[in-house]
This record gives sequence, structure tokens and C-alpha cells, in this order.
Amino acid sequence: MPPVRIAILGVGLIGGSVALATRRRLGASVGGWDPDAAALEDAVLRGVLDDALPHPDAIADADVVVVGAPVRALEDTVLAALAATGPDAVVTDVGSVKAALVGAVADERFVGGHPLAGAETGGVAHAREDLFDGATWYLTPTAHTSGVAFERLHRLLTAIGARPATLDPEDHDRLMAAVSHLPHVLANVLVEQAMQALGDGGLPPVGPSFRDATRVAGASPALWGQIYAANAGALGEQLDRAIARLADVRDRLGDLEGWQREIAAQRAALLDGALSGPTSELRVSVPNRPGVVADIALTLGRAGINIADLSLAPSPDDASGVVGLWVPEPDLDRARELIAQKGLTVS
Amino acid sequence: MPPVRIAILGVGLIGGSVALATRRRLGASVGGWDPDAAALEDAVLRGVLDDALPHPDAIADADVVVVGAPVRALEDTVLAALAATGPDAVVTDVGSVKAALVGAVADERFVGGHPLAGAETGGVAHAREDLFDGATWYLTPTAHTSGVAFERLHRLLTAIGARPATLDPEDHDRLMAAVSHLPHVLANVLVEQAMQALGDGGLPPVGPSFRDATRVAGASPALWGQIYAANAGALGEQLDRAIARLADVRDRLGDLEGWQREIAAQRAALLDGALSGPTSELRVSVPNRPGVVADIALTLGRAGINIADLSLAPSPDDASGVVGLWVPEPDLDRARELIAQKGLTVS
Repeated sequence: MPPVRIAILGVGLIGGSVALATRRRLGASVGGWDPDAAALEDAVLRGVLDDALPHPDAIADADVVVVGAPVRALEDTVLAALAATGPDAVVTDVGSVKAALVGAVADERFVGGHPLAGAETGGVAHAREDLFDGATWYLTPTAHTSGVAFERLHRLLTAIGARPATLDPEDHDRLMAAVSHLPHVLANVLVEQAMQALGDGGLPPVGPSFRDATRVAGASPALWGQIYAANAGALGEQLDRAIARLADVRDRLGDLEGWQREIAAQRAALLDGALSGPTSELRVSVPNRPGVVADIALTLGRAGINIADLSLAPSPDDASGVVGLWVPEPDLDRARELIAQKGLTVS
Repeated sequence: MPPVRIAILGVGLIGGSVALATRRRLGASVGGWDPDAAALEDAVLRGVLDDALPHPDAIADADVVVVGAPVRALEDTVLAALAATGPDAVVTDVGSVKAALVGAVADERFVGGHPLAGAETGGVAHAREDLFDGATWYLTPTAHTSGVAFERLHRLLTAIGARPATLDPEDHDRLMAAVSHLPHVLANVLVEQAMQALGDGGLPPVGPSFRDATRVAGASPALWGQIYAANAGALGEQLDRAIARLADVRDRLGDLEGWQREIAAQRAALLDGALSGPTSELRVSVPNRPGVVADIALTLGRAGINIADLSLAPSPDDASGVVGLWVPEPDLDRARELIAQKGLTVS
């Protein structure tokens, strides 16, 4: 079997780490391109890539293309990559915002992606083979997405240590607005108000809790300016909610012990939930039409059921196939039921 | 010279630690009282106190009285302590909010205080002799305060390792509203909105930045309910400002790169100012093996380079990640070189 051929468009921390992980763990052959010629040369010298591509369109023989362009440039780069690759290629991206991009790219070979890893420290110099070990990697297929493309990407990501999790692009953006983009805005607000409160009277010591709360304040301005802009819809909604909540808190400052108590319970539930355990396999017979696998993954994703691993075995005549899904054991019965409700056979 | 006689009214983490530090480091004789009889007995059994006082008014011979009552009970307890002690005694408290209390107690023997130490983990079982080593301890004297009383308290706190810092009560409360109380409210809002965004569809993994941003969410409900209420004036003002800022951010979500950049500079200025001199951050990518962080810290320590602050952004499996190290600017190049000699990537 020839090695998987991977093309990385945008060789920063994420792209470089995908290159290292796929080369070392899967024996893939990896070519890369970056608009920064010096960074590209550096990536080759460091042994991150097999080859520097002469041009971003020189990817005709790639099996998988990973686009690591800035958020603002993702759509153009993804469309160009789809135009430059063959019918069996998979194209994905690693941007932090998904709905607009995925809505603009209606190609069955495209699967939107977003790894939760190392967003803050950029540069191929920090690339690591193990960057994605245990990391959630969101995938946002749609009804257009080819099951074969989705399955190939899912398997590739699992093989480099990531944990793919499937979500609607809109759900993804709403979730990120709440758990990532809003926290960044609030950290900024804290820094600004602390500066204002301190005036020019010098800077007294501040405790470690302020440091924790503002750790992401002012992170990567170019990157985050684009993320806020790209997720303006969902983030705007989160900001509206935050404003309403703060106004409510302001009106009952004398009576917040009960609120504080509720939050303590919510935080515990939130962080307990972010753990994982043993998984079991479900086998689902599926007709061979686009969108079926994506639909299953989305249904489980919406129900909060993580797909730890996924395999697709087509029947010899390509008319149908069997999808193997590994899900956490406590979710097994619920997953079986949800899939059966679609009229599919589960074993 | 007879030993200093200290009375602790409210023997929790702070009161217990004052007792241990003054007994062991100054040879003080320390009596204590607590409304929780079992906690008081425990404090004597643990050797935290010399004696349990039979009554909170049994403090006639005390040189220094430290009131560790809940915020809501501070005023009554401080006034009772002043009534029960002699003309040369000093009475202080350790509450997180100062203006209302200090305004209500116009006695030259009273000095309001607030140590920035260990507020989150209560109970005398956690008391430590070294809890205040290097910790800021705000003192809020007024025009009424006796210079002798202030000097005696200041010297006592320095002797147990704390760094007293003097502020107007109103300035203290405004500062705390900005750097402590508002961060707690915003952490709560983040938890609430994340719960809402996640719905009942289960809990997907959330990154370490969310954990950092919400570390104080729901902290000690009884304590924080009282703090919010006691500082309603200054905190209300901070909330109004935050609401106005968020509304402004909401109106220009497409154009925030410049803001993000300003905040990055402000945060650096803020954290630089909070230390003895300007520091810079080094970010080091660390591989997946035990002892790496300790090794870096030891290497810098041996070279006489102080680590002013340290953050670890672990990969989701906690096996590897990026270490942020803040070191004094004059030591920056030397620190970078020492770490690079270990074969680690520094930026």
C-alpha cells in the first residue's frame, strides 16, 4: 500500500504538528506550502515536512489536504484546494469558526474541522508530534458531505491521537462563542477595568486569581480579531446574554448567595462532564448515499455522545455498507436508540 | 519583655495562620475564640492556639486583637472588641471589604486590614505558619487612626512575613471590585452561559482556558454573597462599566483587532507592575516526560534567576504542553539560553 499523501496549506503550529504526527505515526508523505517562504523553509529544515510545495495548487495527488490559513483566508484557500485536487481527495481546515465557511463550501469532499489544541502559541517551531494526543477535534460535516471522505478524515485524526467530535457548524460556533470567545472578551474587559481602577497611582500587587482570570486577555491580536469577526452572530448573542445577566446581578447585589451556590453546582457538573472512559462498538448498516454517516455523527453529537472511533466498510457492490462506531459505554443504549429511530439497523 | 498577647476572634484559615505565625515567629501568647465550639477545640488540639477564650469579651489584656468574623458580623464584633480592650490595644480585622466597616468604627485603636491570602480554602485545619510570607496585606487607616496603633500592627504583620500596603478604605474597595469581585461575577456568568449553551445535550470537553477563566466561579457561597453585598457600591459601578464596554464590543465585533492589541499591552503593563520589576514571558514547549518543568525551574533557580510567575497550558491529556515563565527582563536572554541548552524550544 502506498503511503497516504498529505498536503498542508499553512504550516504553523497546527499544520506542522499534523505533518509530524502523520509522518511519524502513519508513515505519510507530507508536502506543505506557506505564504511565508522563510517559515516554509524552516519547516523543511526542521524535518517537519518531506517537501515544500512550489505552489498551493501543487496538490493534485494529495489524499488529504489540511488548510491552516488565517480565518479570513479560509474560504478562498479551501475552494482553491478543492479545485486543485482529485475526486477522491478530502479537504479540511482547522479554523476556530465554522458556519460561514462550511455554508460557503458545498463540496462533498470538504469537512470543516477545528482542533482544540495549542491555539495560543503559534509557529512551526512549536510543532509537536503529540500535540493532538487526547485533544478534541471538532468536525462539522453537512448533508452534502461524502461518508467516505468523513470516515477517512475521522480515521486519520484518531490515528494521530485526536478525539474527533461531530457537531453542526452552527452548534459548533454557538458552543465556541460560549466557552471560548466570550471568555476572551471578558478577560479583556477585566484588564481594561483594572487599568482604569488603578489609574496613575501605580500598580499594587494583584492576586493569582486575577492572573488566572485574565490569562487569555489580548491573546494573538490578529488571530482573535478575525475570530470575533467571523463569529459575530453567535458571539453577539452571548454578549447580549452576558449584558442582561450583569444587569440582573447589579440589581440584586445584596442577595447573591443563592446564585453563588447554584454556580458552584453548575461548575462542578460542567467540569465533571469533560471526562471520558471506556467505549463500546455499535455497527450500523447504512445505504450508500451522501450524508448518511454525517447525519449519524451529527445526531450523536447533538445528544452529547462522543464518537471515539469510526470505521466504514462498504459492501462489495458499493451499494451499502456498515459503519462501526465506538461510543462511551454509558451512552451505548441511548446511541443505539437514536440511530434506530432513523430506521437504520444497529447491532 | 513579656510576650505580645494576641487575641483571635474567629479562628479559621486566616485567624489560625496569624496565631501560628505570631506564636512560632514572635513567641506571642495567643488566645482565640470562635462561635463554632468544635472548631475552637480543634484549634487548641492542633496547637494553633495557646488557649481557648471562654468568651469573645475575655480579651481585656490583649495587645492586638485580630477579628476574623464573617463580613456581615465584622462591625458588631469589632465594636465589641474595642469595648472589651484597654486604651493601648490595637484592633484589626481581615475582611475583604473595608469602607462601610471603617466608616462605622471611629476609634483610634482600630485599623482595617485585608490580607490577600488563602481566601478560598477555609478552616483552621488549613492554617499555616507561612501563609502570609510575601503576601500583600492591605491596611486602611484613616485620619482617626492612632499612629502608634498603626505602627505596631504594621510591624507585627511584617514580622510574620506579610507585606503591608496602605490604602484609603474607598480606594481599597474600588480596587478589589475591579481586580477581585468583578472577576468572580464574570466567572459565574461564564459558567451559567456555558451551561445554557450546552443545553441538556451533554458536556463536550472544554479547554484549559475555560477552566482558568472559571476557576473562582461559585467560590465559597456564604462568604462571597456577603462580599458582593458589602461592596455593592463599588462593584455596582464596575458592573455598569462592564455592561457599557460589552455593549460597545458588541457593536464593533468586526473590528476588534486593535482593541485586542491594546489589551495585550495593558495586560503586560499590569502584570509587570505587580512585581518588583518588569518581567517578560518565555514560552517553552515541553515534551511528554515527567520532571521537565521542575528541571527548568531548578536550572533557573541555580542560575539565580527568579521565576515571578509560571503557567502551564497542558494538552488535554495533561501529558505535555507549553510552559509560560515570567522572568525579570535583565535575566531574559540568560534564561532563554539555559533553557535552549536543554534542547527545548523557547519563544
